[in-house]
Amino acid sequence: MSDHTAISDAGGASVGVVAPCMARFDEPVRLKSGAVLEHYELVYETYGALNAARSNAVLICHALSGHHHVAGRYADQPDNIGWWDNMVGPGKPIDTERFFVVGVNNLGGCHGSTGPSSIDPATGRPYGARFPVVTVEDWVETQARLAERLGIARFAAIMGGSLGGMQALQWAIARPEQVGHAIPIAAAPKLTAQNIAFNDVARQAILTDPDFHGGNFYAHGVVPQRGLRLARMLGHITYLSDDSMAEKFGRELRTGTYNFGYDVEFEIESYLRYQGDKFAGYFDANTYLLMTKALDYFDPALPFGGDLSRALAGAQAAFLVLAFTSDWRFSPGRSLDIVKALLDNNLDVSYAEITSPHGHDSFLMEDEHYHELIRTYLQNIPL
Amino acid sequence: MSDHTAISDAGGASVGVVAPCMARFDEPVRLKSGAVLEHYELVYETYGALNAARSNAVLICHALSGHHHVAGRYADQPDNIGWWDNMVGPGKPIDTERFFVVGVNNLGGCHGSTGPSSIDPATGRPYGARFPVVTVEDWVETQARLAERLGIARFAAIMGGSLGGMQALQWAIARPEQVGHAIPIAAAPKLTAQNIAFNDVARQAILTDPDFHGGNFYAHGVVPQRGLRLARMLGHITYLSDDSMAEKFGRELRTGTYNFGYDVEFEIESYLRYQGDKFAGYFDANTYLLMTKALDYFDPALPFGGDLSRALAGAQAAFLVLAFTSDWRFSPGRSLDIVKALLDNNLDVSYAEITSPHGHDSFLMEDEHYHELIRTYLQNIPL
Repeated sequence: MSDHTAISDAGGASVGVVAPCMARFDEPVRLKSGAVLEHYELVYETYGALNAARSNAVLICHALSGHHHVAGRYADQPDNIGWWDNMVGPGKPIDTERFFVVGVNNLGGCHGSTGPSSIDPATGRPYGARFPVVTVEDWVETQARLAERLGIARFAAIMGGSLGGMQALQWAIARPEQVGHAIPIAAAPKLTAQNIAFNDVARQAILTDPDFHGGNFYAHGVVPQRGLRLARMLGHITYLSDDSMAEKFGRELRTGTYNFGYDVEFEIESYLRYQGDKFAGYFDANTYLLMTKALDYFDPALPFGGDLSRALAGAQAAFLVLAFTSDWRFSPGRSLDIVKALLDNNLDVSYAEITSPHGHDSFLMEDEHYHELIRTYLQNIPL
Repeated sequence: MSDHTAISDAGGASVGVVAPCMARFDEPVRLKSGAVLEHYELVYETYGALNAARSNAVLICHALSGHHHVAGRYADQPDNIGWWDNMVGPGKPIDTERFFVVGVNNLGGCHGSTGPSSIDPATGRPYGARFPVVTVEDWVETQARLAERLGIARFAAIMGGSLGGMQALQWAIARPEQVGHAIPIAAAPKLTAQNIAFNDVARQAILTDPDFHGGNFYAHGVVPQRGLRLARMLGHITYLSDDSMAEKFGRELRTGTYNFGYDVEFEIESYLRYQGDKFAGYFDANTYLLMTKALDYFDPALPFGGDLSRALAGAQAAFLVLAFTSDWRFSPGRSLDIVKALLDNNLDVSYAEITSPHGHDSFLMEDEHYHELIRTYLQNIPL
């Protein structure tokens, strides 16, 4: 996702100052790949209060470049606003007066949870290439352990956009009794060949950067910034719609004239390079690789011969499935694949295709129809 | 364009063995950028015979990675078939029994015409970064000089796909009396912000490759293969349609199972990396940069306040405009922009939107409706 963190108190207030918490797990986790992590930590935030019945918890799952800092700001970083601050807060669509909201940085991340840049206790050095590939299934397993730690036996709702929506879907499949409502937004039940192709170009940009050093760049005091920058630039194109790019940038020239060289000329170039540079300055390249692989691998229908309806046969959650008209990365048709499979199982599903010009990034945007749909749906969940 | 050179004699025969010719020009050309080339050479091929009235010439303009070898094969390279061999030949849609067909490698190319990898007579070393940026307008000017050399005062038709179609359009604007019919295929009157964005990511991949050496990699005995490979992989995604990728590759795995690593796993990854590696092995990185800039810059409506109709006010050619349903790089809507501007000027235009699953690459494919449209249109041109 891109950095369109929208800050608005329209229809709600901020959760205010928040602080991350750390949970350490010493029970080994066996990952889908077969690799075992003996210990790991997950950084998370919570907003609102868990009620006495422990029935009001909402888990927010993050997308490729997201993290646990979903809402509010840090006391010492007042400009560091959570990535879904427009959605989560007192009186906001995910109302922290009513719900106990949990955001967690996924295993393999680079925002505090154990990941490739963490110190491997076995060597005293960053894991780097030794950090195992993780999957959506692994995230659900480790998120479930965090939930147990927090005393949450069942979530009122689990939700997220893009890769976050895949996690909501996987929760409903893997732990049906622990999910009241699943809300996958701008998601898909699996990537297409084109989706995988974009991911692979991004990965190849990182893997072939001479500063990548086979994933162990930490020891060399460098970062594969060139590759990460290209990956982010490319990603950004797929997060926006053709129309929104035309609307926002068109063919506007920085200096008003052609310069017949390779410096920035068009505004869109300036925007993409800026986004790429910024991202390459803080995001971990190995985490980027991991996250794209988790996307590629996600395919719950695979063990069922490609039949998503069979994959969802055990699900019990009610669903709200949301898609955006201009999202060409995970088009509304991909959400309808999910809806179809849910209907095949006679599950309770509401679907809305929201008219939005902002492409895949729409899930981060403040849109009245979108926000009111989520507000209304969540309000009607009995606790 | 990708390497889907289709070889078929359905509806026609091969032009057989061909040989390239070289034309040297010692009259300086002042380019749109203001730069002047004192001397340059253009490599070209011709098929068929110029008639006595010199009225049967057809100019084929090439796209980003194309060249002058449009049809036939070389005596010493029997597998090196022209890129539009399915279209050009005796009895084929562009019938060399009737037309004198000219293919030319554009100025700045890397297939024999003067370009960045050519020796700069001023230094005795390859031009490299010193080679000027060229534009579609410059290509039309230099192609016109080649036409004069060949004794062609007026082309019966000028045609091409993608960037080649832009040249056909520019010919009709810049030299209206020299174009009988213009046939832009899968083209656009200008790039969108998204188009430019993809080009810029490709350029940044090359420009930031440590082996690029500011464009003077020739002197270092290296080639920016990593960057060129990424550029080509990315380009390929935009040449194909989502559907055709799904049809051809889907989520097929090379070894039938997830390997939880970063080697090739999905067939689409294998395909893209192969295409990228192959391309990086022969194409000049500076030419790639030039060609993408020519695409970005093309905007004949710009001097007319964005009004394409005014840009085409002086055109005299009749037009056949063709687009393909699944082309998301230059969608049918972009061709309709051209049609609209032609109609505004009461020009003779035929338009067809051809149902094809092959995306932008459709213009290279053998499709019966597509080929028959071109055959019929050309047959009816009086010579």
